[in-house]
Amino acid sequence: MKIVVVGGVAGGASTAARARRLDESAEIIVLEKDQYVSYANCGLPYHVGKVIEDRDKLLVQTPERLKQSLNLDVRTGHEVTAIDREQKTVTVRAIATGETYQETYDKLVLSLGANPIRPPLPGIDHPKIHVLRNIPDMDAILATLGQGASRAIVVGGGYIGVEVAENLVHRGLQVDLLEMMGQIMATLDPEMARDLQYHLEDHGVQVHLQTAAQSFEDDGGRIRTQLSNGETITADLVVMAVGVRPNTALATDCGLPVGPRGGLQTDKHMRTIDPDIYAVGDMVETENFVTGDAMLAALAGPANRQGRIAADNIFGHGSQYRDTQGTAIVKIFDMAGGGTGASERSLQRANIPYRKVYLHPSSHASYYPGSSTLHLKVLFSPAEGKLLGAQVVGFDGVDKRIDVFATAMRAGMTVFDLEHLELSYAPPFGSAKDPANMAGFLGANLLRGDVHFWYPDDYPEKTQIGTLLDVRTPREFEEWHIPGAVHLPLNQVRDRYAEIPSHSPIFVYCRSGFRSYLAYRILVQSGFSHVSTLAGGLLTYSCFYQTPYSTGTAHYPAIAHAEDQMAEKVLSQTV
Amino acid sequence: MKIVVVGGVAGGASTAARARRLDESAEIIVLEKDQYVSYANCGLPYHVGKVIEDRDKLLVQTPERLKQSLNLDVRTGHEVTAIDREQKTVTVRAIATGETYQETYDKLVLSLGANPIRPPLPGIDHPKIHVLRNIPDMDAILATLGQGASRAIVVGGGYIGVEVAENLVHRGLQVDLLEMMGQIMATLDPEMARDLQYHLEDHGVQVHLQTAAQSFEDDGGRIRTQLSNGETITADLVVMAVGVRPNTALATDCGLPVGPRGGLQTDKHMRTIDPDIYAVGDMVETENFVTGDAMLAALAGPANRQGRIAADNIFGHGSQYRDTQGTAIVKIFDMAGGGTGASERSLQRANIPYRKVYLHPSSHASYYPGSSTLHLKVLFSPAEGKLLGAQVVGFDGVDKRIDVFATAMRAGMTVFDLEHLELSYAPPFGSAKDPANMAGFLGANLLRGDVHFWYPDDYPEKTQIGTLLDVRTPREFEEWHIPGAVHLPLNQVRDRYAEIPSHSPIFVYCRSGFRSYLAYRILVQSGFSHVSTLAGGLLTYSCFYQTPYSTGTAHYPAIAHAEDQMAEKVLSQTV
Repeated sequence: MKIVVVGGVAGGASTAARARRLDESAEIIVLEKDQYVSYANCGLPYHVGKVIEDRDKLLVQTPERLKQSLNLDVRTGHEVTAIDREQKTVTVRAIATGETYQETYDKLVLSLGANPIRPPLPGIDHPKIHVLRNIPDMDAILATLGQGASRAIVVGGGYIGVEVAENLVHRGLQVDLLEMMGQIMATLDPEMARDLQYHLEDHGVQVHLQTAAQSFEDDGGRIRTQLSNGETITADLVVMAVGVRPNTALATDCGLPVGPRGGLQTDKHMRTIDPDIYAVGDMVETENFVTGDAMLAALAGPANRQGRIAADNIFGHGSQYRDTQGTAIVKIFDMAGGGTGASERSLQRANIPYRKVYLHPSSHASYYPGSSTLHLKVLFSPAEGKLLGAQVVGFDGVDKRIDVFATAMRAGMTVFDLEHLELSYAPPFGSAKDPANMAGFLGANLLRGDVHFWYPDDYPEKTQIGTLLDVRTPREFEEWHIPGAVHLPLNQVRDRYAEIPSHSPIFVYCRSGFRSYLAYRILVQSGFSHVSTLAGGLLTYSCFYQTPYSTGTAHYPAIAHAEDQMAEKVLSQTV
Repeated sequence: MKIVVVGGVAGGASTAARARRLDESAEIIVLEKDQYVSYANCGLPYHVGKVIEDRDKLLVQTPERLKQSLNLDVRTGHEVTAIDREQKTVTVRAIATGETYQETYDKLVLSLGANPIRPPLPGIDHPKIHVLRNIPDMDAILATLGQGASRAIVVGGGYIGVEVAENLVHRGLQVDLLEMMGQIMATLDPEMARDLQYHLEDHGVQVHLQTAAQSFEDDGGRIRTQLSNGETITADLVVMAVGVRPNTALATDCGLPVGPRGGLQTDKHMRTIDPDIYAVGDMVETENFVTGDAMLAALAGPANRQGRIAADNIFGHGSQYRDTQGTAIVKIFDMAGGGTGASERSLQRANIPYRKVYLHPSSHASYYPGSSTLHLKVLFSPAEGKLLGAQVVGFDGVDKRIDVFATAMRAGMTVFDLEHLELSYAPPFGSAKDPANMAGFLGANLLRGDVHFWYPDDYPEKTQIGTLLDVRTPREFEEWHIPGAVHLPLNQVRDRYAEIPSHSPIFVYCRSGFRSYLAYRILVQSGFSHVSTLAGGLLTYSCFYQTPYSTGTAHYPAIAHAEDQMAEKVLSQTV
């Protein structure tokens, strides 16, 4: 068996390594056009920022070591220029010498990745306009920084963009981040991305939403960038992080079809329509686990697993790829944010009905040092409560909750199942009722009809036909309240509910949604028929509208009184 | 509806709060014999250590606040002395006045917890011998510390014992910890508890295994403790943390039955044999999710959920408790350790067949700062690979992995499902192949017959009939190897395997098990028929036998060469 793998990073390296373990006698050739194989591409931004000081740490493997340990024939600087499916050969060009040769294969595995998009804007070829996908890209950015740089523009507010922005701040630069959409981190819903944006801004990154770069011009070695909003910024370097495009040219040239999203099509065995050609990683389309739609996921985890699956199938193990959840996370300075499954936006696009809850639990027992407030949004099906998506943002324990939701979703669990999860608890790590349990309680309450929510976008149109009822403490109400709200503290609701007009709907709210839920229960059982409680309270509301609570960090804003905050936290711990 | 809840901490407080939300009109009385309700009992050791500085932070609730927010009639200092099931009344004694009265109920909920065991040893009543279960216990320990204390004995190496030991070290005391068994943390298997013990010792705690306290004697205000090994230690205080016993006397007095483990019996609705009496929390027995055996789990999470379920059922919601996995975690200084499901010991006891894997992955990408080595043990069924138990020990990301395993196990997942989990990855948080995926790969390889393991307890009896083959680097081999081992570095196995005797079994090993797995694959495919690889490598082996790698921390021991370590880590990242 002779296996030729084209592309020696995540997916390709995994394929080759697994293939060797499955078959000691196979001839395995890895052709990589760049000089580096199996390097830590997710670490690139962090070496730019000197968080990872040693460049060598990123160079996970060398051809020599892969030869020694896995008997792989790794040829860097060798580019495949054509595939002959009839003859089962590839044409290879040794870049250093220009020499061209044919290599035969029994099985061919394509792992060509994706190319960073460089939009065809005037001046885009300026030598200090960079992308960041591979080691040479990183070295180029470092070289530009080495020439002395004090200001940078990052174009694109996705994973790479925000990671690069953070790391340029670590290098002492003033950073402007341009994002065409109305939010950064478009895989999250906008209200969940808001705190991450604030946190970037807290650390000095100037975030320009709904703003594109229109053209670039050299200005004495610097770059003058014209923005779509009319502004001009002159910077020492620009990093384009506006997305990637699957690298499918080689595959389509030999007649392999791409799917609706532009990625190469494979079956669940990672086999293309040619039974002797497999494809893995960022260049392929997969099926979305939730919506069933074709999707492009430039994610390291799926790429690695797909490589393993391709090798399995080459040797007759029938393993199958189980669709993509899109589980992802980003660190932004001290915060983290991410999610799994579908966002609300993608459910709407796919016309999938859903319900949603928001919550703001402590990352761990609030009496133990270091806890902070998490922001969670969980989406689930209206009928059986099946998990469709979850997003988590905060300072502590974010990755853990995403992974619990990702595992639960993969297992087909419902919000009713979340209620019963038995997760590890000690005060430094969680709460007796973990945020995942709490999400289950809320979702199950909703589906059982024990609660009705109103949402920030019901304001003001829907809320103006009824009573907007603030059940926080007098101090909190005085500080700030939603314009038009009537005040009745939770502790007085039982005695004074007769004062509330009963002929029209009541829209209750508090800080996080817990006290208003208690008020909701009191009112409904006292005979009020149209009551709803603000999902996620003002903490979620403030992600939609500018309020005094919208500034600063995801910690409870300094403006609020510590006692009130503690009283509510404490109350919610006896849910 | 009149509900009387006996016991106002975790389970009882949850029952009362949930009951109020479900029914605004119910009369809800909470009777608590102590002065405190709904306090943070899991935080007690940390206030002893001043990690939680403010005592008030532990006092989560007061009767007044519970009255205001939830309209609960909470009576502290009121002890229930008898239950009359016929009349549906309880006899209550107001401790302050000695006054006794009857209280009727429609539904009675018992949440009496468990009592710390004080074994009847000579001198056990010394005023400086403490337990730690509630606020008065904590205050008593603090009072003793306040009198000046430099040395303490902690009896019992379970969760409370090690937390107390750590916190007494924080207070500057010299601490001896006595444990009757051959390991601390008996819910973990011994080899998984070993690193936690070393870490305690690294922080100055003197751990005495297989050692009991036999008697106590006053020595001028101090306590002279006679140990079972003949030693004597004189200390300023003793904390007994040898376990708890369900507080069932009140229940059994009125004819409610206890189960085989001594906890009160309920159905899955948390209802006792009396349809009007429910019981929740540490005083009840539940069914073990894995073994089906009756179990006592003094855990906050289950207690809180049971309270909620009891309230649900009082009001006709049919919710059911879904058995106990025993998910738990402990922090010991900088380390954490815990698990979910059954231990190997408990599977053996229950006669449940199982297979097991050990692994030592990085907590997150090893090139990103702050990563460290995790120690994982995963148990699963031999036929379908269903998860039966998982244990995780390390410095970083321990709680996350336990929770992923707990969720996967709850969902009935197999090792084959773990392979496909799509977990959140960015270098600060994980790896493209997360430890949970890696555990799945190993388990699936084992069940598919792609690998055979040998285990440390096969040494030396089984291994002496064959060749013990060390495939580490020459440097590593020279440093230390298992006595009797033959050396053949992985990189030379392909060229030199003919030197290995082929007529007898080969027992391969390396540091973590990864290189030996590669060697295993080479050898098996080169015609050797009896090959096995040491599960978990020397890192696991060193938890069974004293080796130079056994000392210090769970980080790769300083004695090993950094390059070899990195080479292996790097290799395993291209699994």
